[in-house]
Amino acid sequence: MRFVSSDRFQQIKRLLDKRQPDLTVVMENVNKAHNLAAIIRTCDAVGIPKVHAVALRPEIRTKQNSASGANRWVDVQIHNSTEDVFSTLRQGGFQIFVAHFSPQATDFRAVDFTKPTALVVGAEWEGISETAISLADGSLYVPMVGMVESLNVSVATAIMLFEAQRQRTEKGFYDKPRLDEATYQRLLFELTYP
Amino acid sequence: MRFVSSDRFQQIKRLLDKRQPDLTVVMENVNKAHNLAAIIRTCDAVGIPKVHAVALRPEIRTKQNSASGANRWVDVQIHNSTEDVFSTLRQGGFQIFVAHFSPQATDFRAVDFTKPTALVVGAEWEGISETAISLADGSLYVPMVGMVESLNVSVATAIMLFEAQRQRTEKGFYDKPRLDEATYQRLLFELTYP
Ligand SMILES: C[S@@+](CC[C@H](N)C(=O)[O-])C[C@H]1O[C@@H](n2cnc3c(N)ncnc32)[C@H](O)[C@@H]1O
Ligand SMILES: C[S@@+](CC[C@H](N)C(=O)[O-])C[C@H]1O[C@@H](n2cnc3c(N)ncnc32)[C@H](O)[C@@H]1O
Repeated sequence: MRFVSSDRFQQIKRLLDKRQPDLTVVMENVNKAHNLAAIIRTCDAVGIPKVHAVALRPEIRTKQNSASGANRWVDVQIHNSTEDVFSTLRQGGFQIFVAHFSPQATDFRAVDFTKPTALVVGAEWEGISETAISLADGSLYVPMVGMVESLNVSVATAIMLFEAQRQRTEKGFYDKPRLDEATYQRLLFELTYP
Repeated sequence: MRFVSSDRFQQIKRLLDKRQPDLTVVMENVNKAHNLAAIIRTCDAVGIPKVHAVALRPEIRTKQNSASGANRWVDVQIHNSTEDVFSTLRQGGFQIFVAHFSPQATDFRAVDFTKPTALVVGAEWEGISETAISLADGSLYVPMVGMVESLNVSVATAIMLFEAQRQRTEKGFYDKPRLDEATYQRLLFELTYP
């Protein structure tokens, strides 16, 4: 076991004190390394301990696998299908929204992100799958007033996650630890002695 | 002159009706093409007609120049120095904030973005220059509760710009045209017949 300074240990505890186990992201076929990395980095910054990735094609799976090593602070769970990840999330009591600009979508600011929430974001070209749209509780959009038809996926994800962060800050979700004791202790050990 | 459908013409007018001439971004030494592109795309989406780029090194200048062609809807103005772009902005009556995570910084949500505002964002590695920090009205930060020390630059920019969009929506800034008549007509012509 290597030596861990007490500063480092305190820093990891401060991180765990803010973690939001009931907020997560599903990256559906997101395939550019820089977007995967930017999303995972944003998740760490808002306190998301675990995100999900699902890939339609093997080459995307490879990139998602390597992105999952990019950040030791956020756990990336890889799934075989959209149905799989949705059923895992449903069992965990999550409401599931897809980020998808469409006439049926709801403004992202109208959503209650203090409920257990999973946000599904789509591939750079294809966007969200029909499966995800039909299995989700609804679609959310970020309003746009220009000519471009979509935002960069890591940008759209971050805008929605920081709305969740705002709502959760207001409700005191960052004021006391929200991980259950067993998870807290497990993560404390794993992050301290990786 | 080529034919422009009346649909297209109406679409361009709707774009101009939402443009916010008193909101802008300065990209200081931002050097990755995908970040430049993502920022410009976000600017279009929140209705920013013109952004600024300044480069310390020639190879960054080249990338900024090519990014400036990437989006026909947002005008990218290239400057020779941070001092230059700041003095242009001051003449235009802009308050200038740098996006910079530091102990002296203000939470970005505390800023009044309905005033004429320029947001300066920094390079992927070096961040914001000392010059920019010292010449600006202040530094703004996006709160982070994880282990990473910064967000992706296009992500940080977007989070702040969508706060500006939120404040400006609330104040009715998107409800009637805000470009002066001469600029409106010039842009209508330029965008219709590029
Ligand atoms: C580049 S976009 C995909 C565009 C794709 N052509 C489409 O039609 O969906 C990548 C992902 O970013 C998210 N996204 C981008 N802009 C968005 C917006 N304005 N509202 C909601 N989600 C957005 C969505 O999850 C989307 O699947
Ligand atoms: C990747 S960061 C640069 C990090 C650099 N090592 C530093 O110390 O500033 C690129 C730019 O994104 C913006 N940025 C990233 N995270 C930010 C945050 N949490 N608050 C404010 N600005 C941020 C800043 O403009 C920064 O210069």
